[in-house]
Amino acid sequence: RVWVTYGTEVFDVTDFVELHPGGPDKILLAAGGALEPFWALYAVHSQPHVLELLRDYKVGELSPEDAAKPTGDTEDPFAGDPPRHPALRVNSLKPFNAEPPPELLTQSFLTPNELFFTRNHLPVPSVEPGSYRLRVEGPGGRGLSLSLAELRQRFPKHEVTATLQCAGNRRSEMSRVRPVKGLAWDIGAISTARWGGARLRDVLLAAGLGDKTGEDGEWHVCFEGLDVDASGTPYGASIPLKRALSADAEVLLAYEMNGQELPRDHGFPVRVLVPGVVGARSVKWLRSVVVSPSESPSHWQQNDYKGFCPSVDWDSVDFSSAPAIQELPVQSAITEPRPGAAVPAGEITVKGYAWSGGGREVVRVDVSLDGGRSWRVAELGPRPARGRGWAWALWELRAPVAAGTRLDIVCKAVDSSYNVQPDSVAPIWNLRGVLSNAWHRVPVTVTR
Amino acid sequence: RVWVTYGTEVFDVTDFVELHPGGPDKILLAAGGALEPFWALYAVHSQPHVLELLRDYKVGELSPEDAAKPTGDTEDPFAGDPPRHPALRVNSLKPFNAEPPPELLTQSFLTPNELFFTRNHLPVPSVEPGSYRLRVEGPGGRGLSLSLAELRQRFPKHEVTATLQCAGNRRSEMSRVRPVKGLAWDIGAISTARWGGARLRDVLLAAGLGDKTGEDGEWHVCFEGLDVDASGTPYGASIPLKRALSADAEVLLAYEMNGQELPRDHGFPVRVLVPGVVGARSVKWLRSVVVSPSESPSHWQQNDYKGFCPSVDWDSVDFSSAPAIQELPVQSAITEPRPGAAVPAGEITVKGYAWSGGGREVVRVDVSLDGGRSWRVAELGPRPARGRGWAWALWELRAPVAAGTRLDIVCKAVDSSYNVQPDSVAPIWNLRGVLSNAWHRVPVTVTR
Repeated sequence: RVWVTYGTEVFDVTDFVELHPGGPDKILLAAGGALEPFWALYAVHSQPHVLELLRDYKVGELSPEDAAKPTGDTEDPFAGDPPRHPALRVNSLKPFNAEPPPELLTQSFLTPNELFFTRNHLPVPSVEPGSYRLRVEGPGGRGLSLSLAELRQRFPKHEVTATLQCAGNRRSEMSRVRPVKGLAWDIGAISTARWGGARLRDVLLAAGLGDKTGEDGEWHVCFEGLDVDASGTPYGASIPLKRALSADAEVLLAYEMNGQELPRDHGFPVRVLVPGVVGARSVKWLRSVVVSPSESPSHWQQNDYKGFCPSVDWDSVDFSSAPAIQELPVQSAITEPRPGAAVPAGEITVKGYAWSGGGREVVRVDVSLDGGRSWRVAELGPRPARGRGWAWALWELRAPVAAGTRLDIVCKAVDSSYNVQPDSVAPIWNLRGVLSNAWHRVPVTVTR
Repeated sequence: RVWVTYGTEVFDVTDFVELHPGGPDKILLAAGGALEPFWALYAVHSQPHVLELLRDYKVGELSPEDAAKPTGDTEDPFAGDPPRHPALRVNSLKPFNAEPPPELLTQSFLTPNELFFTRNHLPVPSVEPGSYRLRVEGPGGRGLSLSLAELRQRFPKHEVTATLQCAGNRRSEMSRVRPVKGLAWDIGAISTARWGGARLRDVLLAAGLGDKTGEDGEWHVCFEGLDVDASGTPYGASIPLKRALSADAEVLLAYEMNGQELPRDHGFPVRVLVPGVVGARSVKWLRSVVVSPSESPSHWQQNDYKGFCPSVDWDSVDFSSAPAIQELPVQSAITEPRPGAAVPAGEITVKGYAWSGGGREVVRVDVSLDGGRSWRVAELGPRPARGRGWAWALWELRAPVAAGTRLDIVCKAVDSSYNVQPDSVAPIWNLRGVLSNAWHRVPVTVTR
C-alpha cells in the first residue's frame, strides 16, 4: 500500500492515488516519504481543503526515532553536503549527482531550484558569505579580490534564462550499446533557470584583462572552484577568452538562480554560468578567474569531457587529440509517456524538451509514432521573447492512437543552423559516454 | 577511341590514357574536346616535353567550321553568359548551374575559379566596371553610392578563405528517396576560395547604419543583384544586421576571388560573401545594400531555401513557418573513389571534404568501410592557421582491403560544437531537397 507523511502524521493514500488531480504518477513520487517537499514545489497544495482531504487518510503517527533527523558522520568529507529534494533520482550520493524524474522535468519552463539536476564532482564546500573572496587575475591585469558585496554592487546585475546540460545527459542509452565510464544519467541531466549575476565581461574589463584577443592565438579564462579533492586539488575548467569578453555571449558570475540566492548544490555563493556551453565549464563555488594563454590544466578540461570516434578505447585514447567540449550539439528527449508505459486508446499526448548549444534556438521538433518512418511536427511551447536561444523549448504533440497497437515514439530536433540529431546511438558511441544526442525512443503500448 | 584537341590539331590519346601521370580519370575529363582549359588549371602541363609527347598522338586537324566559335542568339536572354570550363558538370544551362566533377573537387584546397561551382538563378548581367555603382542605404543613414574604385580605395581590403555551399548540395541523394523540386546537384555544389574585398561592416558604418541592433527586434541587411528576371525583378536575399556588423563574422563585399577579379559567373564586379552561411545569401552582381527591419521580400528569402519536416508536401507547406536558412549544418562527402568503382586490392585511399556552417571548424571525420558498423578516423589535411573555421577540411583515409570484397564506404564529420551528420536521408527529406547532409555512402568492389 502507498503511504506518505506530513509533519509527524502518517497517511495511507492508496485509495487516493487514482483521484490525484495532478495524475497518479506525480503523487507516487512522494510515496514512502514526506509530502512537504512536493507541496512546496506545487503551490496548488497550499489550500486548506487539501490538508482536510488528507486527514481522511490518516493511519497513525511517526515514532519519535523516525521523526528525528539523522546525525552526520564527522569523518565523512560529504557529511557537510546540504539536504536534497526526495524527488531527485540519485545517480551517485558521494559526490552527489542526481536528476529530476522525467515526469517533473517538463512540468514548468523554469526548473524549480530543488529539482534542478545536480552534478557535483567533489564534496559541497561550506562557504561563509561574509568572508568569501573571488580572485580575478591575468598577465598585465590589475588583480582583483572581490567580496560578495562588491561583486553585487560594483557590477550591474544581468539576467539570463539559460538551460544547462551535463555532457553525460542520456549516457545510459549509450551504455546499452557498449559499457562506458561515467554516471548512468537518464534524460534529466538538463534543466533551465533564470540566472542573475555580474557579467564576466564587466569583471574582466574592470581587472584590465580585456585586451588579450589579438593575433597571438586564442586565450582562455580558467576557473577554479572551492570544491577540492583529498589532495587539495580544486575542480577547474576554462572557456575561450573571446566568449568571456563577448557581450552577446552573456557569460555570468551568477549569484542568483530563479530569483533566489544560489542553493549550496548549485554553487553558493557564486558560480560561472556559460550559456550554450556544456555544464562542466560553469564552475560552481567559484574561487578564482585567471586569464591565460592556455586552457585550464584541470583533469576535467584536459582528460575528460571530450568526444572520440567509436573505435577509440581506453588503450588507444589520446585526450590531446580532441577539443574540450564547449558548445553542445542539438538535443531532444521525450519526457511523457515513459518507456514501456501502457497508454489509453484515443488521443496520446507526447511531451518533451529540445535544446541546442551556442545560442542556436530550436526551430522544429519532429515526432514519429512508428519508429521514424513517418513524422509530425510538435507544437513548441512559449519561450522568452528576447535574447538568444539559450533556453530549451518544451514541446507537445497530440495524436490519435488505436487500441491494441504498439507505438515506437521517436523525437528529433532541428536548431537554427538546421543541425539535426543523428538517428542512432552506436555511431556516436564514445568511451566516456558523452554527447549522447541520438533520436530519443520511447516504446509504449496502447490499451483498451 | 579517345580524342582531344590542342589549337586546331586533333590527337588520339587512347593509348596514353593509362600512362597519364595524373591518372586516367583526369585525362578522360578532357575527352572529345580541347586540352587548353585543363592545362591552364594544372601548371605541370606547361613544359615543352608535354607538348612534344602529345605530338606523337596527332591524327589530324579540325575542319574550319568546327574550329570556329559558335555565334550567339541575340533573342536569348542567356546569350550574353560567359564561356565556361568544359570540366564542369552542367545541371542547368539556362540559367547556368554546374559543379566540378568529384575527382577535381578535392585536388586542391582552394578551388580554381574556373571549377568553382556556379549557381545562377538568372542570366549573367553584363556590367561595365567604369559605370558600376553600389547603393547603400537604410533608415537614418547617409545614403552612399559607391563606384568600384571607391569601394576599393575607401575601405581596407580584407581577405577571408571561405567555403561556399549551395543549400541544394547533394540533392540528388534526397531525390532517390522521393522526388523533390530542384536541380539535381551531386556532391560538388561546394567550393572554397580566398576572397578579397571591403568588409560590409566598414561600408555600413561609413553609411551611418551601425546603430540598428538595439532592443527593437532583429534588423536585416537586404541585398539585390543586377541579375533580373523577365519582369525586371532582381535576385535578392538578406542576412541579420548583427552578422553584417560583426567584425568576427567577416562578411565581405568581395571583388577578388583567389587573387583575381571576380569572374562574371561569380558576381563581377562585386558580390556579397557571407562566410559560414548558405551560398544563397552571398548575392552576386550586387547593386544595392539596404538596412531594414524586415528580411528581404525576395522569393528566395521568403519562399525558398527553408527546411521542413518530411511530412510537409506542396499542398501543406507554409513557408512562413520555417526560418530562412542562414548557417548550414555539418557536412561531408567522399570524392574518391566513385560509387560503383572497382578498386585494386591492397591499400585503398578514400578522399573527401568536410565543412560546417557558422565558422564551426571540422574537428574529426570518421570513415567506415563496412556501411557504418566500424569506424576509423581520417587524416585532416592542412588548413589556414589563422581565423575561424570558414573553410572546409580535406581529408584522406588509407586502409588495407582484401580482393573480392565489397565495401560500403561511409563518411561522417564532427564540428567544433560536436554536431554530427544524421545517419540516413529519409528522415531529413524535404520537399525542396535542401540541407542534404546525411552520411555519404560510396559502394565499391575490390578487384584482383
